[in-house]
Amino acid sequence: MSQPQTAITPRREEDFSEWYQQVVRAADLAEPSDVRGCMVIKPWGYGVWEQMQGALDAMFKATGHKNAYFPLFIPLSYLAKEAEHVDGFAKECAVVTHHRLEVGPDGALRPAPSAELTEPLIVRPTSETIIGATYAKWVQSYRDLPILINQWANVVRWEMRPRIFLRTAEFLWQEGHTAHETDVEAVEETERMLGVYAKFAREHLALPVYTGEKSAGERFPGAVQTLTIETMVQDRKAIQAGTSHFLGQNFAKASGIRFLSRTNTQEYAWTTSWGVSTRLIGTVIMAHGDDDGVVLPPRVAPSQIVILPVTPKEDTKAAVLDAAHKLASRLREQRFHGDLLRVEVDTRDIGGGTKSWEWIKKGAPVRIEIGPRDLEKGSVALARRDRGPKEKTFPTVDECVEGITVVLQEIQDGLLAKATAYRDANTVRIDTKEDFYAFFTPKNAEKPEIHAGFALAHWNGSVEVEKQIKEDLKVTIRCIPTAGQIPGAEEPGRCVITGEPSPRRVLFAKSY
Amino acid sequence: MSQPQTAITPRREEDFSEWYQQVVRAADLAEPSDVRGCMVIKPWGYGVWEQMQGALDAMFKATGHKNAYFPLFIPLSYLAKEAEHVDGFAKECAVVTHHRLEVGPDGALRPAPSAELTEPLIVRPTSETIIGATYAKWVQSYRDLPILINQWANVVRWEMRPRIFLRTAEFLWQEGHTAHETDVEAVEETERMLGVYAKFAREHLALPVYTGEKSAGERFPGAVQTLTIETMVQDRKAIQAGTSHFLGQNFAKASGIRFLSRTNTQEYAWTTSWGVSTRLIGTVIMAHGDDDGVVLPPRVAPSQIVILPVTPKEDTKAAVLDAAHKLASRLREQRFHGDLLRVEVDTRDIGGGTKSWEWIKKGAPVRIEIGPRDLEKGSVALARRDRGPKEKTFPTVDECVEGITVVLQEIQDGLLAKATAYRDANTVRIDTKEDFYAFFTPKNAEKPEIHAGFALAHWNGSVEVEKQIKEDLKVTIRCIPTAGQIPGAEEPGRCVITGEPSPRRVLFAKSY
Repeated sequence: MSQPQTAITPRREEDFSEWYQQVVRAADLAEPSDVRGCMVIKPWGYGVWEQMQGALDAMFKATGHKNAYFPLFIPLSYLAKEAEHVDGFAKECAVVTHHRLEVGPDGALRPAPSAELTEPLIVRPTSETIIGATYAKWVQSYRDLPILINQWANVVRWEMRPRIFLRTAEFLWQEGHTAHETDVEAVEETERMLGVYAKFAREHLALPVYTGEKSAGERFPGAVQTLTIETMVQDRKAIQAGTSHFLGQNFAKASGIRFLSRTNTQEYAWTTSWGVSTRLIGTVIMAHGDDDGVVLPPRVAPSQIVILPVTPKEDTKAAVLDAAHKLASRLREQRFHGDLLRVEVDTRDIGGGTKSWEWIKKGAPVRIEIGPRDLEKGSVALARRDRGPKEKTFPTVDECVEGITVVLQEIQDGLLAKATAYRDANTVRIDTKEDFYAFFTPKNAEKPEIHAGFALAHWNGSVEVEKQIKEDLKVTIRCIPTAGQIPGAEEPGRCVITGEPSPRRVLFAKSY
Repeated sequence: MSQPQTAITPRREEDFSEWYQQVVRAADLAEPSDVRGCMVIKPWGYGVWEQMQGALDAMFKATGHKNAYFPLFIPLSYLAKEAEHVDGFAKECAVVTHHRLEVGPDGALRPAPSAELTEPLIVRPTSETIIGATYAKWVQSYRDLPILINQWANVVRWEMRPRIFLRTAEFLWQEGHTAHETDVEAVEETERMLGVYAKFAREHLALPVYTGEKSAGERFPGAVQTLTIETMVQDRKAIQAGTSHFLGQNFAKASGIRFLSRTNTQEYAWTTSWGVSTRLIGTVIMAHGDDDGVVLPPRVAPSQIVILPVTPKEDTKAAVLDAAHKLASRLREQRFHGDLLRVEVDTRDIGGGTKSWEWIKKGAPVRIEIGPRDLEKGSVALARRDRGPKEKTFPTVDECVEGITVVLQEIQDGLLAKATAYRDANTVRIDTKEDFYAFFTPKNAEKPEIHAGFALAHWNGSVEVEKQIKEDLKVTIRCIPTAGQIPGAEEPGRCVITGEPSPRRVLFAKSY
C-alpha cells in the first residue's frame, strides 16, 4: 500500500530531525541566520512567542511578580563568584573584549587595540550574578524582602550543535529572580513557579508534563534544588520545558545579599530563579506537529481562525469578500478564555489550494472557506487542523459563530489528550538492567531517530550510576517525579543497575 | 521669602541635571549598574516602558506591521557594507572576539586564545545590516513586498558620557524595518510611522512635538531622509524623541535586496527604518517632572491610581482595608481609553506621610486616601499629582468612581497644555546673527543649565553654517519643521548667519 501524500517530506517516522527542520521552514516560523547558531524568528513564530509571553506574564503578575530589566553584560569577575556556576556557564559564551572598531594598517576594520576593556564582559548566559549584585544593594533589612522580579530578555550560550528553537546560541526567555527572608518561603516560591509552568504547559500548550526534581548531576550550576517540567515529543525523547531553581544561600553569599533580620542579626537571603524560553516553540512543534506541518494549540496560535474567501468569478468576488470580512468581525467579538478571538482573512490573490495548504502547514487551528455557493446556502466550510486536511463541516454562519469557541476548546483538549495518551503508551516500568539496556538500545537501524520512550525505574541515588547510563546509552534521569503523580512510583524497590535498595522510581529518557 | 520645601533636592532651576538624577532615584525608576554605562530598569520604570510598549505595539499592528526577532550579533563585514553607516556606528560598539573562557596560566579566567572568532561580532547598535541581509533572502519578486516588520530589542552603543535613560550603553527600543516596491510607498511609510510617533507622543506621553526633517548633517548614517519628532524639556533643551528614516535603496544595494519587478526587471527594494527607545522615559521625566518628583501622564502610569488606607486604630483597620479594596475593585472595572484602570492599594505598614510622599515622588497621577472618618462620611480624599501635594477634594465613593476617568483625562490634557505653553513661551524667531548668538549664550552663570529655548531662524542650507553654529554654541538644527505646523515658518527670508536667501525657518536648539 502506498503512503498517502503529505505536505512535509520526510515524514516523522522516516527522519524525525529532518522532518522538524522542514516543518519549521514550511510553517515560516524561523530560519537560521548568517550568524553562527543564531536564528531569525519570523512573524508567525514570533507571534506564537507573543502569545506565550502574554499568558505567562499575566500568570507571573497574578503571583505578585513585577518585570524589570538588568544589563546584557556581566563582568567576568561576577561570573567567577559562584564556583559551580562559573564551571557551568563560563565554557561557551560570547566574550566582549573591545569597545571600538578602527581601520587597521591593512585598511580593514578591526577591534581597536587602544579600546581593549580592562575586564572582559560576558554576554549574559543567565543573570543570577548580575542580578544578585543588584539585589545586594537593594536589600538592607527583612522589610526589603521578598523581592519578586521577572525579566524578559535575550541570552547567549555558544552552542556547537545548534538546533532551531531547541538549542541556539541566542534565544529569548524570561528569568524570574526572587530573594526571600527564609528558606521555607524560597522553597515555596520555587514550587509555586514550577506549578505556574506546569499549568501553562498543560492548559496553553497542551503539553502533558511530569513535574519533578532534578538529580544532583542534572541540577542548575549553583542551585541547591532544580525543579523541572518534562514532556515527551513524538520521537519519544524528553524535553525539559521549564525549570525552577531553589538557590539556597549560594548566590546570596557569592553576591553579598545580606539583611538585618527580625532578631537583629545579619543574615544571607534565600534566592530562587526560574525560566522558560523560545525552546517551548520547538517543543510544541515536536509534540503536536504531523506530517502536514505544525499543529498549534488554539490558545497560543497567533491566528486561531483563518478565513479563506474563494473567489473564482469576478461578479461574485465583492460579495464573497464582504461576507468573509463580516464573518471575521463577528468572530472577533467572541472570547476564548477571556481574550477576543484572533481571526485573519487571507485575501491574497493566489490559488485556493496553495493558500489552504499554507495554513495547514502553519498549523492554524481552524480554516473557514467561503465561496459563492456557500453564500447562496448561508453556510461556510469549516476545517479543523486536528482532523484530515479534506475533512470539513458545513455550519450556517450563525452556527459557526456560536459554536466556534467550543470547536477551539475541543481542539485544545484533543491535543492534550492525544499527547498524554502517546506519552503514557510509551512510558514503561523497567526492573532489570537487561531490560533497561534493551529498551534504550535502538532496535531498528532504519529509524534510529524514533526512540523507545520514558522508563520508570529504581535508582540507588548515586552519581556513578547516572554517569554510566549516560555514557552507555545517552540516557539521563529527567526527574525524580513529584510524589502522587505516577501511581506506585513511590513504592520502594531495587536499583535497576546495581540492585541496591531504592526508595522510589525515577524517570529515565533520552532528551534534547 | 524662603522657598517652600520640596521633595527633591536640588530644585530644577538650581541644578537641572542633578535634579534629574535625584528624581530618577527618588521615583525608583532606574539606577546605574556596575557595568559601565548600563542601567538597571527597576519595576516602576519598566512598568512605564511596558505601557509605552503596549500602546505602540497596538499602533504598529493597526498599521499592518508584525513583530519578529533578528540576531543580537552582527558580523563585522555586514556593518562595513554601507559606507556612511559604518562610519556612524563602528566607532563605539561592543565587540565580541571570543566564544569561550578558560583558566589561564595565572589561575584566573580569561578569553580562551583557542576560541578566538575568525570574524569579530558586533553587538547590534541598530539592525539595518543584519535585517537587510535577511530580507535579501526573503524577497524574490514584487509579490514578496512590502515587508512590514518591527522588532522589540536591546541595542548597545558604547557611550563615554552616559546619562540614565537618555544615553546609556545598552538601551531598549523598537526598530521597524520595512521594504517596498517603490520609493513613493517607502516615503509614505516613513511619514506614516512618524505620524504614529507624533500621535503617541502627544496623546500618550503628553509631549508637544514638532515633526520635521533632519538636515543632512544630522541624518541617520546611511539614510536619504530622516524624519524626527522633537520636544522641549524643562531646561529648554530639545530631545529627539523618535525618528523615521527613508533609506532609499542604500541598504537594499548594500545587502542585495533585489526583486523581479512587474515589468520583469531586477530592481532594488526601497527600505525604511524607524525607532523609539527607553529614552522616552527620560524625556517624560524631564518634560513633566517637578520639584517633588516625577509626574506621569495617566496613559503611561503603571498604576494610575494609588489607594492609601489610613489605619490609625486597630478597631477600624479591617473596615478601612475592606473599603479600600472594594473601591479598588470598582475602579478597576472602569475603562480609560479602552483599558481597565490600573489601581494599586498600598497596604504597607509604614507611616501615611512617608507613603504618600513616595507616590508623589513616583508620579502616580491620583492618590486616594481612605481613613476611619472618611468611612463614616462615605467619602474619600482625592489628590491629583498635577496639583499641590496637600490639595485634596472629598468626593463620595460613588462620585469618585464615576468621575475618575474625567479626572485622569484632565490630568493628561493638562500636562500636554502646560508643556505646550512652556515650549511656545520659550520658542522665539530670531533674525540676526547677534541676537542668535546672544540667545544661545548662557546669561546667568549661576544657572548654566537652564537654556534659552528653541530658535526659529532662517538658514542658507549649508553644512558649513551648521558646523560653525555647533562649534560656537553647541546648537544644532533639530529639524526643518513639517510645513503648516508653525505659522509663517515657510515664508522666505535671509540666513541668520550669512544673510543668504533662505526659503523657510528651521528649528535650532541645544539638545540631549
